[in-house]
Amino acid sequence: MTSISTISTTKAYEGIQGTYEHESHSTGCKMTFSVYMPPSAELSPVPVIWYLSGLTCTHANVMDKGEYRRLASELGLAIVCPDTSPRGESIPDESDNWQFGTGAAFYLDATQAPYTDNYNMYSYVVSELPNLIGEHFNVDLKRQAIMGHSMGGHGALTIALKNEGVYKSCSAFAPIVSPSTSAWSANAFEKFLGKDRLAWGQYDAVELISLGHRFPEFLVDQGDADDFLEEGLKPWLLEAACAEAELKLTLRMHEGYDHSYSFISTFMDDHIRWHGERLLTS
Amino acid sequence: MTSISTISTTKAYEGIQGTYEHESHSTGCKMTFSVYMPPSAELSPVPVIWYLSGLTCTHANVMDKGEYRRLASELGLAIVCPDTSPRGESIPDESDNWQFGTGAAFYLDATQAPYTDNYNMYSYVVSELPNLIGEHFNVDLKRQAIMGHSMGGHGALTIALKNEGVYKSCSAFAPIVSPSTSAWSANAFEKFLGKDRLAWGQYDAVELISLGHRFPEFLVDQGDADDFLEEGLKPWLLEAACAEAELKLTLRMHEGYDHSYSFISTFMDDHIRWHGERLLTS
Repeated sequence: MTSISTISTTKAYEGIQGTYEHESHSTGCKMTFSVYMPPSAELSPVPVIWYLSGLTCTHANVMDKGEYRRLASELGLAIVCPDTSPRGESIPDESDNWQFGTGAAFYLDATQAPYTDNYNMYSYVVSELPNLIGEHFNVDLKRQAIMGHSMGGHGALTIALKNEGVYKSCSAFAPIVSPSTSAWSANAFEKFLGKDRLAWGQYDAVELISLGHRFPEFLVDQGDADDFLEEGLKPWLLEAACAEAELKLTLRMHEGYDHSYSFISTFMDDHIRWHGERLLTS
Repeated sequence: MTSISTISTTKAYEGIQGTYEHESHSTGCKMTFSVYMPPSAELSPVPVIWYLSGLTCTHANVMDKGEYRRLASELGLAIVCPDTSPRGESIPDESDNWQFGTGAAFYLDATQAPYTDNYNMYSYVVSELPNLIGEHFNVDLKRQAIMGHSMGGHGALTIALKNEGVYKSCSAFAPIVSPSTSAWSANAFEKFLGKDRLAWGQYDAVELISLGHRFPEFLVDQGDADDFLEEGLKPWLLEAACAEAELKLTLRMHEGYDHSYSFISTFMDDHIRWHGERLLTS
């Protein structure tokens, strides 16, 4: 059994909110993550929802501000929140660039030196961490869902599309739907994946759909007062791609909401309930 | 009209979570506070719940982690969260002491030099800030409630007892019920109020009750895994004082809960609902 260390646990809504760390072989460094286990996990394995965070975040932002525990406790769902990148002095980074490197690894496996040893967040989230969670927590990995915010929304959409059948459901808050063309991510994609844009398509939701990847249904919420809407997020590109491919997309635009956890927490209940309906009935 | 500056506003649960600052005459410095206004405030004045925070906190801890907005929005209640002390280079403080000074002003009016010019959080919370809120927000100050955590629970209990009739209801999470005898606060009380312990009783819930102050009813929640239970909090002293004075107290001990916002957020709905029942029916 691969070992994990408990950083802290605290009782919340009758379940346990914990923060843990472990040595990751995917990222070649110590990684921190949080897990909320609902009280029903004491009786039987519970489904898992993965929440992937956005640029500059760690596992802690949604743990503190996401307001997911009340309903996760009530419905009996585990919520796992990974960090957004490898971290540490030995990890190649650009300390003055918040759109690349630490806090900005874009849930991909890098192919370019010097990033290949550490920037493998795709493998970490899809393979290494689920195995670890399955070993250490009373979860049912046959019932997984994935969601995320902004860069993490990109992560959730692309991971779901690349692993149809692994995740029962997928949703996103203000996702970067087309990182190949987004001002936020094109620079990072070039550093991680090289200049050949064909390689970028493997980590781009809009491109993956046009390449034939499929997923049963997406729920996407987006605030119309989000400062990053026009340049970074562009949900209409996902809408067009889903329409073209006849994929089911529920895209909800919300008047006056911004890009913050005020927006996320407001609609978190809807997402938890939506995933619960798909995880708990099957 | 006294002026306030908006630091930020964000839409949350259809209402507005704002952070503001103003020059305070009570504390002789710039003070920050947050206000959540529910959507119904667009139509008519709404009741106000005051939330007073604990040692080391600012207005932001409960704003980020308190999970009060969902139900405040639904019931139509404003939530005002003041800072816990004056702050700034000109404010006398002991920078290495988290139990005194910055973040630890104990909701009293200091009588000892050099603290009298700034450490007047009692007057600030009871008088100055309500007047300011009444001027700038669509609230009904005839319907106020007060709650708090730890040092802020002490603030809520003592302010309610000293102002019977001003607040319709009062509740607390893990309050310091007897700061005169608590290891947490005796040192600060001596600095703020002098060596004469008679003066301390004016800011001590247990003492105020024994001196004849009254309030209709208290709700107090306390975790039994709270590290500060035995030395700092001692809810049994409030229980005994209320029993002696025949005051109604609902004291709920919760197995396994600690002193953190995991505990607070778990029971926040109960408190908001409890205050709502008393604020909205009268």
